[in-house]
Amino acid sequence: MVPTVEWKNGAVRLLDQSRLPGSVEFLDCQDYQTVAEAIRTLKVRGAPAIGVTAAMGVALGAQAVSATEYSSFAQAVLTICDELAATRPTAVNLFWAIERMKQTLQSLDTHPISVIQQALIKESQAILEEDIVLCKTMGRHGAELIRDGQTVLTHCNAGSLATAGYGTALGVIRAACEQGKKINVIADETRPILQGARLTAWELMQDQIPVTLITDNMAGSLMRQGRIHLCIVGADRIAANGDVANKIGTYSVAVLAKAHNIPFYVAAPYSTIDLNTKSGDEIPIEQRNHLEVTTIHGSHPVAPKDVEVYNPAFDVTPAELITGIITERGVFKPDELASQFGLK
Amino acid sequence: MVPTVEWKNGAVRLLDQSRLPGSVEFLDCQDYQTVAEAIRTLKVRGAPAIGVTAAMGVALGAQAVSATEYSSFAQAVLTICDELAATRPTAVNLFWAIERMKQTLQSLDTHPISVIQQALIKESQAILEEDIVLCKTMGRHGAELIRDGQTVLTHCNAGSLATAGYGTALGVIRAACEQGKKINVIADETRPILQGARLTAWELMQDQIPVTLITDNMAGSLMRQGRIHLCIVGADRIAANGDVANKIGTYSVAVLAKAHNIPFYVAAPYSTIDLNTKSGDEIPIEQRNHLEVTTIHGSHPVAPKDVEVYNPAFDVTPAELITGIITERGVFKPDELASQFGLK
Repeated sequence: MVPTVEWKNGAVRLLDQSRLPGSVEFLDCQDYQTVAEAIRTLKVRGAPAIGVTAAMGVALGAQAVSATEYSSFAQAVLTICDELAATRPTAVNLFWAIERMKQTLQSLDTHPISVIQQALIKESQAILEEDIVLCKTMGRHGAELIRDGQTVLTHCNAGSLATAGYGTALGVIRAACEQGKKINVIADETRPILQGARLTAWELMQDQIPVTLITDNMAGSLMRQGRIHLCIVGADRIAANGDVANKIGTYSVAVLAKAHNIPFYVAAPYSTIDLNTKSGDEIPIEQRNHLEVTTIHGSHPVAPKDVEVYNPAFDVTPAELITGIITERGVFKPDELASQFGLK
Repeated sequence: MVPTVEWKNGAVRLLDQSRLPGSVEFLDCQDYQTVAEAIRTLKVRGAPAIGVTAAMGVALGAQAVSATEYSSFAQAVLTICDELAATRPTAVNLFWAIERMKQTLQSLDTHPISVIQQALIKESQAILEEDIVLCKTMGRHGAELIRDGQTVLTHCNAGSLATAGYGTALGVIRAACEQGKKINVIADETRPILQGARLTAWELMQDQIPVTLITDNMAGSLMRQGRIHLCIVGADRIAANGDVANKIGTYSVAVLAKAHNIPFYVAAPYSTIDLNTKSGDEIPIEQRNHLEVTTIHGSHPVAPKDVEVYNPAFDVTPAELITGIITERGVFKPDELASQFGLK
């Protein structure tokens, strides 16, 4: 499996997801600004993946800070943290990962700068490794929910490309396949950025997991025909009450699933759960450039140039539409999350 | 308003909708085969528009038949009718319009060929003119359903481009605007062919009716925010029980509207109502080429080349999800259609 993000030769190497599936290209980020830009422009995307990437961006930025004394070093690293945190507003893993990096920084305030610099690299690596373990554990729990021969609908890409590897929603599907179950996947193409068409379809084909691509507006018709048995999606932020922010269109899938009595699951690690956010209403929703809707890949026009566009990157699915949330600790009802994850 | 289709200098002139909104180009069809190909390749689309176009295709083909005697002339014209009828399977207006042309042909069996040829041109022109009148009447009935200041969601293009002019769903919106109401339109882009982005947005902007373009998967989120007051769509075929076949994704809009208590209307003339089809289950659904999903405009790839694709052009919305059907005779509940249109 191609790594989504890795620390390589003193740089952050990203698989440039904006070029997939046409070409597999890597971006070697030599400074944290390039990392921030890669997050902003969706060269790397997916809540867990941008968490890992931001952590590595902090570590990378810290290596270049020339301060010799802790307070000015820390000041510089915190500025880097702020800049990386400002790249995207919705996925909480970004803030969670940066917070971990800050804690590492602050816990070593009596140590030499070079030791802290090494520790920051190590912490970002730990976040990456932990993410893979979390996904695999989540996969094992979630795989129990899928029966042999079933067809699973997924939206956007919550796969190895959205994480450090293995994936959340696709991790569950991978785990079910590894158990020997025959699973078919229906992938929503997921306009406007087409993560389903470009990334999920590509990733599943690489793993030889049967996948059928549809446009987003076909899911309802397939559900009505009884051709979808369950839905599994990822998450960008889960509020304390179990409301889930995820890629735009997730809410529609959940409403359609409810109308057809199809179970609707969300797969996400603890780092996506934000108990400081009471409900989905408090989750900031990123609005993105109209060119994502009026063109394909920024260049190929598909609409009148000056048309008014509404382009939210995410929507909120209320807890009552969610059958269960698949985590590394097991599968819970949305209203069980706060008590399960309240004390760590 | 640019004419969608017209009889011009002995040819059928079509506005090439596959080139919109990038360029406004016309296709002068000199033979019926070119007309058939234009329907097949969606250069002209929309149920009423393909009805009118097919009728003109029959008239055009009939001019080139060199038979001097009725039976061989009729034989040749019926073959042309069959070929045009085989272009697309779902929209019933196609078969209805061709049937009218056959009746004209058969009613004149004692007349000279040249008289029948002229009568066929005249009949196709009558179908075109009737379509515009039907749309305007429908518009007046439907406009009563929209209040000043409301926002209407529409899917695909049921506008002047989908008819001989004025439009069905967009005709209703036009009529409301002509009454001085301020109406905002939300246009689903309508993948895979993007009729909403390319045609509806373009058409409304030409008429200076405020329109906001969204991807199909954003409609649910807007409904949840209370930003859509009603939905109006067109239809490709309405069965006797009130089930409606329309552009893929219509069913999802209807389910979402129901879940949010938003009225969902279908606008269609009598020629779209097919009392010979008992229910939506009997309506044949056209499956189209996978390239429509995996590429934009057949050339710009957006998915892995060999991915499995499901690409139905239409879906069926069951009568119970439809608030009312707007026709030229008034607005009816879906279950009132059979009695209203049973006797003509």
